[in-house]
Order: sequence, then structure tokens, then C-alpha cells
Amino acid sequence: MKSITSRDNAFYKELKQLATSSQARRKAGQSLLDGVHLCQSWLDLRGAPSHCVVSDGALGNPEVAAIIARVGALHAPVTALPDALFGAISQVENGVHIVFVVASPTPSKAPALVEASVLLDGVQDPGNVGSILRSAAASGIKQVYCSPGTAFCWSPKVLRAAMGAHFVLDIFENIDLAPLVRAADIPVLATSGYASERLYALDLRRPVAWVLGHEGQGVSSELLDLATHRVAVPHAGKVESLNVAACAAVCFFEQLRQLQA
Amino acid sequence: MKSITSRDNAFYKELKQLATSSQARRKAGQSLLDGVHLCQSWLDLRGAPSHCVVSDGALGNPEVAAIIARVGALHAPVTALPDALFGAISQVENGVHIVFVVASPTPSKAPALVEASVLLDGVQDPGNVGSILRSAAASGIKQVYCSPGTAFCWSPKVLRAAMGAHFVLDIFENIDLAPLVRAADIPVLATSGYASERLYALDLRRPVAWVLGHEGQGVSSELLDLATHRVAVPHAGKVESLNVAACAAVCFFEQLRQLQA
Repeated sequence: MKSITSRDNAFYKELKQLATSSQARRKAGQSLLDGVHLCQSWLDLRGAPSHCVVSDGALGNPEVAAIIARVGALHAPVTALPDALFGAISQVENGVHIVFVVASPTPSKAPALVEASVLLDGVQDPGNVGSILRSAAASGIKQVYCSPGTAFCWSPKVLRAAMGAHFVLDIFENIDLAPLVRAADIPVLATSGYASERLYALDLRRPVAWVLGHEGQGVSSELLDLATHRVAVPHAGKVESLNVAACAAVCFFEQLRQLQA
Repeated sequence: MKSITSRDNAFYKELKQLATSSQARRKAGQSLLDGVHLCQSWLDLRGAPSHCVVSDGALGNPEVAAIIARVGALHAPVTALPDALFGAISQVENGVHIVFVVASPTPSKAPALVEASVLLDGVQDPGNVGSILRSAAASGIKQVYCSPGTAFCWSPKVLRAAMGAHFVLDIFENIDLAPLVRAADIPVLATSGYASERLYALDLRRPVAWVLGHEGQGVSSELLDLATHRVAVPHAGKVESLNVAACAAVCFFEQLRQLQA
């Protein structure tokens, strides 16, 4: 294990850049996984990180020690930092001080819509995007396509909210969704509070593509027009609509309920 | 309409306190509703605010003008601030500059569990609490009981995430949940990723109380033991669990599906 003690260390400066600048992460093609759970998930599902960084204060933590041992067995580098230096590279308050630097997965060209998938059309809140990725992974959906206006999936906030879902999904970002929907081989279901078709009236025992929209404006009218179905989750109250991540969970798990019934 | 131009104005100082300090809000028994949607919802569902505050720059906005007219018709005061002063009382970036000051509803003594309700056991993230309130209201649940460790419901972040759900719910905070569950007249369903009972195997065509737990630790073992059922949302993936607000939405709307079937 190496130790860094100076703020002027080149690798430390690079880490700070990665932690605070999405531009730096994109340019380097690297992401930071912050905290025990994400690091464990990466090891379980993807293997070795490029680098494991811990604070001196975290070395006594048994979960951290176990992660360091696994990283060592995979011959990946581990570096320890004083607690005071670690603060600048973590956004998790009161978290356990461990981060992985990993190469951001670069998926191949986005495939056509042929299997169960989710299309995010301008979903902006990182917490919502993360929650949707997590629900997708938990319900067995594997492919995620994001429009240019959707929050960047490999940001620390989205990674944290998705709790490792990224590592089992194929995520395609910056995708022009309209041509994708036009060429789809499966039904495309756009969610909308104003739709007349009820979620529960649909036969969902087959792969579909779900389209979820911007928190305020919803799915764009272009995609609503192109979709095979416009679907609403029936309500029973005076409140106008659901949070987009809540709506996604209801749709994905209604499909799973039908598939498992 | 009054105007304030000085940062030393006593009412302006009070507003800043309310905007930035949960202690000040609790002490004053007041909440701030930030943005057009929350203000409209309050007018629709609860009537006049104690005070309406807008920025000079927002006066030309037609939605703001309509709100001011409704507030005026209800004989409630309206105050305009220079944009530079408004910034300090709003946490909404790029939002329309209007806030209501309202008396935080003080519900009567929390009633026993006899009708459809939600119990929040240490749910910490304001976004999750807000999303759960919104889903509860949208699915027809009216009563919400929060343990002492749950995020304060009348904070600006929870209010914003719930999009007006607060105004149709009875929210009881700082409630010791164990005695409430022990005395319940309806089934109490605690959600847990480790439970063996499947959500879809339950007959939900009757009022139940849902218990949702802390983002990391889940529902406390005491409440899991006291609950009538421990319920899991069946998964189909390698990801261990759902976000608590996503789990809540799946449960509430599965109940609504059964009720409406």
C-alpha cells in the first residue's frame, strides 16, 4: 500500500479533479465509486478497480480491510491518504472513507430496441435517475438509453442512488431517442399522467421499452406520438401525479408481477 | 402590495431565518412553500397563506400574477422584494420567485391505526420522504406517522419533493411507532428485502398500515416483530433491494390495483 501525505502529489490532484468535475471524469473516461457498498458491488460484478483509495482512519474498518484484501489479491493498487486529504475527494458525509477509481464502461454502439429496456427522456434529478436504474436492475431490465438532457449516469450522485445497479446494466447515454423508438421491434410504452390507457389494462408479459420523462414536462410530445402506447398509473387521490422514479418502479414491478403470475 | 428594499427590514430578517433554519420554523410554527406549484396547491386545498412574498422580477410572470390576485382576494398580505434579496429565502435554483409563509399544520393527537396509513421508521432522505408522501396521497392513503428519526416533513426539501401532497394528508411527526403498532386495529405490513411473504400473495383489499424503514438499516427489528406481516417486493435481478420510496410506490399501487380490480 502506498501513502500520500502532500496535497501537491500529482495523483491526489488528479483524484480531486475526478471527484469534483464531471468534465474531468469524461475526459479521463473514469468514474469514482464512493463508499463500501459500491466498491463491494464493483468487486462482485466487475472485478478489479484501476485504483483503490482509502483514508488512514478507515484502515481499521473490517469492511474496508476486506475490500483492500480483495483488491490486493487482484493486483490492483491501493493508496492511503490522511483523513484531512480524503475529505476533498468524497461527497458522502459521515461515510466510510473508501473510493474506487474505475474506467467508466464504454458500451458498444447502442443496439436497437429488441429487449426489455428503459428510455430516459430528459430525467434531470440524479436521485431520480439512480433510483430508476436501481428499480430497472431489480426488476430484471438490462438496457437503459438516455437522451442528451438526462443526468449523466456515471456522476457520483447517480452512482450512489443506484447502489451498484450500473454494474449489471448496459447504459447508453446521449442517445437520440426518436429514431430508436421509430425502429423498435418491441412495444414502446410512454408514461404520462394524462394518458387514457391504464397500466393494469396492458398485457406486459413480453419485453417492452418504457419511456420516462422530465420531472416537470414529462415525456416529450414527439416521443408520446411515436410510442405504441401512452400509459397512466391510475390514481385515487387529489394529487396530480407521481414522482418519475416512483412511476418507474410501479411500471417495472407491475410487469414483473404479470411475468411471475 | 408592500415593498421591502433593505436587508435590515425586520420581516425580511425573519423570512431569512425561516428559510435557513429548521429550528426557526419549528419555533415559529411556520413553513415556507417555495415555487408556483406549492403555492397554487396551498390555495386550492388550504386557502389563504399568512403571507405571500415575491421578487420584483417575478411580478411579470402570469402564474405569479394569478396567485397574487387570488391571495389579494383572500385579503392576505403580499410583499415584493428586489431579486437580490429574494435569493436568500429560496432554495430553488432557476425557480420562479414566489414563496408562501404558512402556519405549519398542527394535527390533533395522533389517532390509533384504524384507516389506511403509512409509518415512516427513520426514513432520512428528504427526497425519499417527499416522494413517499406524494405516492401516498396519489394512491388514496391519508394518514402518515413519522418516527423521531425520520426527516422533518415540513422542511423545504420534503415539501418540494412532495409537490403539495402535504396539504391532503394528516401528518403526525415524532411518533413512537411501537405502541401505535401494538394497538393497531388493521393489519400492519412491514416491508423488508429479507421477508419471505411476497407482496402479491397478500389480500390488500382492505385498509392496512405500511411500515417503511431507514435507507440503510430498513425497518427496526422491534417493528418487524410487532408487524402482522413482513412483506417483500419480489425481484428478478442481481441487485439487492429497492430504494425505499420506490418500494413504497410499488406497495401502495399494488394495493390500489387490487382495490380497483
